[in-house]
Amino acid sequence: MLRKVFIIGAGMIRFGKYEEVWLEDLGREACWKTIKDAGISPRDIQVGYCSHSNGGRVAGQRILKEVGISGIEVINIENACSGGSTSFHQAYIDIAAGVHEIAIVVGVDKMYGAGGLIPPNPSDFEGLLGRTLPCRYAMAINRHMYEYATTVEQLAKISVKSHKNAALNPFAQYQNEVTLEEVLNSRMIADPLTLLQCCPTGDGAAALILASNGVSRKYCNKPVKVGASIVTSGEFQGADSDLTGSELTIRAAREAYETFGGGPENIDVCELHDAFTAGELMHYENLGFCKKGEGGLFIERGDAEIGGRIPVNPSGGLLSKGHPLGATGVAQIVEIVWQLRGEAGKRQVKDAKVGLTQTIGGAIPEIGSGACSVNIFYR
Amino acid sequence: MLRKVFIIGAGMIRFGKYEEVWLEDLGREACWKTIKDAGISPRDIQVGYCSHSNGGRVAGQRILKEVGISGIEVINIENACSGGSTSFHQAYIDIAAGVHEIAIVVGVDKMYGAGGLIPPNPSDFEGLLGRTLPCRYAMAINRHMYEYATTVEQLAKISVKSHKNAALNPFAQYQNEVTLEEVLNSRMIADPLTLLQCCPTGDGAAALILASNGVSRKYCNKPVKVGASIVTSGEFQGADSDLTGSELTIRAAREAYETFGGGPENIDVCELHDAFTAGELMHYENLGFCKKGEGGLFIERGDAEIGGRIPVNPSGGLLSKGHPLGATGVAQIVEIVWQLRGEAGKRQVKDAKVGLTQTIGGAIPEIGSGACSVNIFYR
Repeated sequence: MLRKVFIIGAGMIRFGKYEEVWLEDLGREACWKTIKDAGISPRDIQVGYCSHSNGGRVAGQRILKEVGISGIEVINIENACSGGSTSFHQAYIDIAAGVHEIAIVVGVDKMYGAGGLIPPNPSDFEGLLGRTLPCRYAMAINRHMYEYATTVEQLAKISVKSHKNAALNPFAQYQNEVTLEEVLNSRMIADPLTLLQCCPTGDGAAALILASNGVSRKYCNKPVKVGASIVTSGEFQGADSDLTGSELTIRAAREAYETFGGGPENIDVCELHDAFTAGELMHYENLGFCKKGEGGLFIERGDAEIGGRIPVNPSGGLLSKGHPLGATGVAQIVEIVWQLRGEAGKRQVKDAKVGLTQTIGGAIPEIGSGACSVNIFYR
Repeated sequence: MLRKVFIIGAGMIRFGKYEEVWLEDLGREACWKTIKDAGISPRDIQVGYCSHSNGGRVAGQRILKEVGISGIEVINIENACSGGSTSFHQAYIDIAAGVHEIAIVVGVDKMYGAGGLIPPNPSDFEGLLGRTLPCRYAMAINRHMYEYATTVEQLAKISVKSHKNAALNPFAQYQNEVTLEEVLNSRMIADPLTLLQCCPTGDGAAALILASNGVSRKYCNKPVKVGASIVTSGEFQGADSDLTGSELTIRAAREAYETFGGGPENIDVCELHDAFTAGELMHYENLGFCKKGEGGLFIERGDAEIGGRIPVNPSGGLLSKGHPLGATGVAQIVEIVWQLRGEAGKRQVKDAKVGLTQTIGGAIPEIGSGACSVNIFYR
């Protein structure tokens, strides 16, 4: 019943600290680049989806007006760290259902001055007592280290890889390499997670143009196809079950693989949710890239490196590219589009044909309120 | 290509001031009532849409978890005062496209302690200088009074009608009647709009269950059908054009009438956006209920009363029922569902067969950023 959906434009600004710049300015730049990339006119766009967490009222309308888009349906979406992927998903459904032919998705956030990346909710007693996201990830990875002999060096190696990739990415917030010693010796945030193993506060914007088959043929000679787009909710990270797994990610990935008609063995490149190194290590397992308990080996063997078995976060990921909540999921897809088109410059994964993105979010783990999205793309 | 969509459940809590109650509690109550009304189990629900403006991260997931719903796709939506209608619209598209069979929509907001109904955006220079929403509506109605000899008494009569209806509505924030003198003599907010002509600050929640035809037949013997659902954006209220009209509402209404295959003459009952009496008066014209300039006559003749030609806001509307942003659009639809089912108690519009809702929102008028939704329902 659903039609095929194509991505015909992708663009983003460099993530970073934009203190004197408005949200509208960040969003506008990402939209312009993307519209130009697609080779369409702003007037061709029929519907807009905007994801943000701190953008205030009708942020999407405010941003799209800046690129001359008004008078169309515009929807603003929030889903914590999965907001960007969720806005993509809604645009995907819109085009797939035949409601519109061309959609723009813009993800944007200004995190500086927003009172912390995700301030604990007043009803989150555990969070207010200190069981915040870094601590939850630290607890989980401690258990992982206990059960599977995962080491702090394996964990730190994820940050080294992230920075190495980001140094090749002109859109990354941090473009400097770091050594294993620097990662291990940086300030302790939540044992064993040091500062360089936690994503930074940052501002940013990214955008995509989605289109139906007919439109795609008209404008684009190298469209990227959407193979699966799953958004789900549930337990953020095994509060009642296995602390070292993410039932939410496992389930979203299974549904995505089923929809796509393939499995982890088909994935050539992946952008996943590495808000903390601990998350990336466990997501190797959650996404089926390796067996349960072998996440440490996966990074140690170099499997996640560019040139490895399944390159993970060639962009630098949330750790080094940055993590402006609403922008993140969209930026992940932008990177995958560039990788599948062969336009990722020095960080290009050779001959990438199928890419996967994963984001997971939610600030209130103890009441099981998380959102997760897994998308698969191919050329 | 799109399937027919049915509303099989509707419910809300009384709007008002809930200082010691959490957002999750408000939303949970509305969801429970609605699920019970539909006669389904929480486990039957396949997707959730939540609209809110001040609810924090993943509010929909937090609320639905409270009624035992987890593990499904949940999307959080913001579109200022149109947020509720936009979340309904997204659920409508979802079911119409065949993505899911049963959806829950919950609109919720806690406005007390949120720093004002819609605080001016830092980039809204005119707003920061005092050109806020009450002032904009006041400017528009002043022009209307100048051009069409509309009177302050006609305007005030809208508040009298609103309170009269709300006194019959157990879900309204204010359930007391007011006299014309009381309206005219209440504190001046923005000449000629007095306090009783401006909607109150309030908390609230409302919910709906949408279903496909097959599911609807199984559970519901008096479903309400969706005739049209339009969301659009653009000029909030004639900044560049006619100050006394709303191009956005006119366009959304035209599209809704076209989709439905009818016109204002077919509408038996209407819930529209009366954040200020001035808005309701001009929306009579924008929706085609009367000719341009005759909004004052429309209320004066009693056309908008229950028992009148087109009863408007039998619930009491935003003015008396209250206006918790994310809840408003959903609550409007709840009222229309009850009216079309003949379950609206003392405020029942006799033999109502077709109902219309309209909401318009957006805080940054000078850059033309508004959202508007018009829906048509029938039995």
